[in-house]
Amino acid sequence: MKIEKGTKFLIVGLGVIGGGYAKALTKAGYTVDAFTKKASDVLYAKEHGICRKVTTIVDKKMVEEADMIIFALYPHTFIDWVKEYGHLIQPKTLVTDVTGVKTEVIEKVNALLPRGVEFIAAHPMAGRESSGIEYSDDEVFHGANYIITPTIKNSTEAICACRDLGKILGFAKISILSPAEHDRMVAYLSQLTHVIAVVLMNAENIEGLEKYTGDSFRDLTRIAKINDAMWSELFLMNREALLSEMDDFLSVMEKFRALLVAGDREGMRAMMRVGTARRSLFDKPKKGEAKTPAAK
Amino acid sequence: MKIEKGTKFLIVGLGVIGGGYAKALTKAGYTVDAFTKKASDVLYAKEHGICRKVTTIVDKKMVEEADMIIFALYPHTFIDWVKEYGHLIQPKTLVTDVTGVKTEVIEKVNALLPRGVEFIAAHPMAGRESSGIEYSDDEVFHGANYIITPTIKNSTEAICACRDLGKILGFAKISILSPAEHDRMVAYLSQLTHVIAVVLMNAENIEGLEKYTGDSFRDLTRIAKINDAMWSELFLMNREALLSEMDDFLSVMEKFRALLVAGDREGMRAMMRVGTARRSLFDKPKKGEAKTPAAK
Repeated sequence: MKIEKGTKFLIVGLGVIGGGYAKALTKAGYTVDAFTKKASDVLYAKEHGICRKVTTIVDKKMVEEADMIIFALYPHTFIDWVKEYGHLIQPKTLVTDVTGVKTEVIEKVNALLPRGVEFIAAHPMAGRESSGIEYSDDEVFHGANYIITPTIKNSTEAICACRDLGKILGFAKISILSPAEHDRMVAYLSQLTHVIAVVLMNAENIEGLEKYTGDSFRDLTRIAKINDAMWSELFLMNREALLSEMDDFLSVMEKFRALLVAGDREGMRAMMRVGTARRSLFDKPKKGEAKTPAAK
Repeated sequence: MKIEKGTKFLIVGLGVIGGGYAKALTKAGYTVDAFTKKASDVLYAKEHGICRKVTTIVDKKMVEEADMIIFALYPHTFIDWVKEYGHLIQPKTLVTDVTGVKTEVIEKVNALLPRGVEFIAAHPMAGRESSGIEYSDDEVFHGANYIITPTIKNSTEAICACRDLGKILGFAKISILSPAEHDRMVAYLSQLTHVIAVVLMNAENIEGLEKYTGDSFRDLTRIAKINDAMWSELFLMNREALLSEMDDFLSVMEKFRALLVAGDREGMRAMMRVGTARRSLFDKPKKGEAKTPAAK
């Protein structure tokens, strides 16, 4: 399929990401239907005009009508949904997702989907520390990164349609990685950072600490406000990659610790200069700055 | 002394913090003179009208005229300055600072100051990852925390004058801690966070990583752009406290690692919930929200 003027989207899951996708696609003029578990989401979606039809029960006709189905669920809920309702999906419908781990999810979903239904996986590198549709915001995608993780089973047509979806949603950089590369990258860039934030918040319990803090601590722990159900699931599904990143981090920390113990000022400064130089690559493009139009 | 309409301030060091103090105090209507090492700072300060007199050489008369001298230098530069020029400071002049470590600095400075000159130490918990007067901004103090670290040698008059300074600068919460409490707090809230950011940037070296990142990684590593000369000095001056915080952090991380290895979802979730609950205390007050007027 190719995304065109009349393309019909079905979003399964109206959380903070699914809700943001619905807002962006409706604003861009597409027809967007959605399934959600919570009745209050239906009200919210209707009040804010972000979907055409929204239901809490899986409507066969809505599934059949969709040209592209976007799953915005927790990994195990996504797999369970496909197990129960996957047979309703029509051949030619393109399936994509927003799931934060790829290898295991892609394998399981592909095994469950009916013949002729193509699943092209993708991961929007944008989110919020709060969950729920009321926190959804399509602006978070602007300037953010979008990763498509095709396998050998995917057609170039599906990859291009997925890239077009990323563009419509407003992502600045759209990249392609294998599921395994993605899971390693995400272990470092996203899962390890969440582990650090949680560990840092657990490392001290002094009352009134917030009276003394500066912004560096606030920034490092923003994501310690964490959706524990979702992230524990993501960590366990990507356990080997995450453990490997944690071990790299721990060993570099031990190295820095040894420099401090030894009073090795120059050794510490050398590591700080590496940090400064590498970090400068990571600044977010300002609004209106050049977007990278194509996948790598 | 008491800060009054005609109070004359002398700021020694026009970096990102000294420059911000100069801007705030000039805006508030006080007379502000300054010493700086860089001739370009003199031009900047004059062009932006943020001081009355600024010189690169230590002018005896400017020191004598000051009612309150604020040192905004690196720790060792502060100590060196007092060693060389401290004798110029007049009795009744109140001395304060912005230094990020306290115990050692206070001890050394007090030993060097002339009799009758009182030093009341303070630490503004606000800053920027970039250094230099051109990055200075008095807005960073609004909503931020300010810590006064008196010793037994300080008068209540000096503590109150220092608190008034914090209020004039716009800090939201002004607290009092002993130098040792301060150094332990700062080891956790500020130094450990900088170590983590530097270590995280040093833990992987994959080309093109920035194409895949989300905001969590950006936030955690913002401070990896670090002034290596200053921070290595701060770390070494607070070595024992920082090592202790690093060890606590490392042991909690090992605990989390063991839960992940064991597949202990509930154990991980429990730690995440602690993180979420504790972190909620740390949100910055929005502009215009109640400020805490008094020290604890």
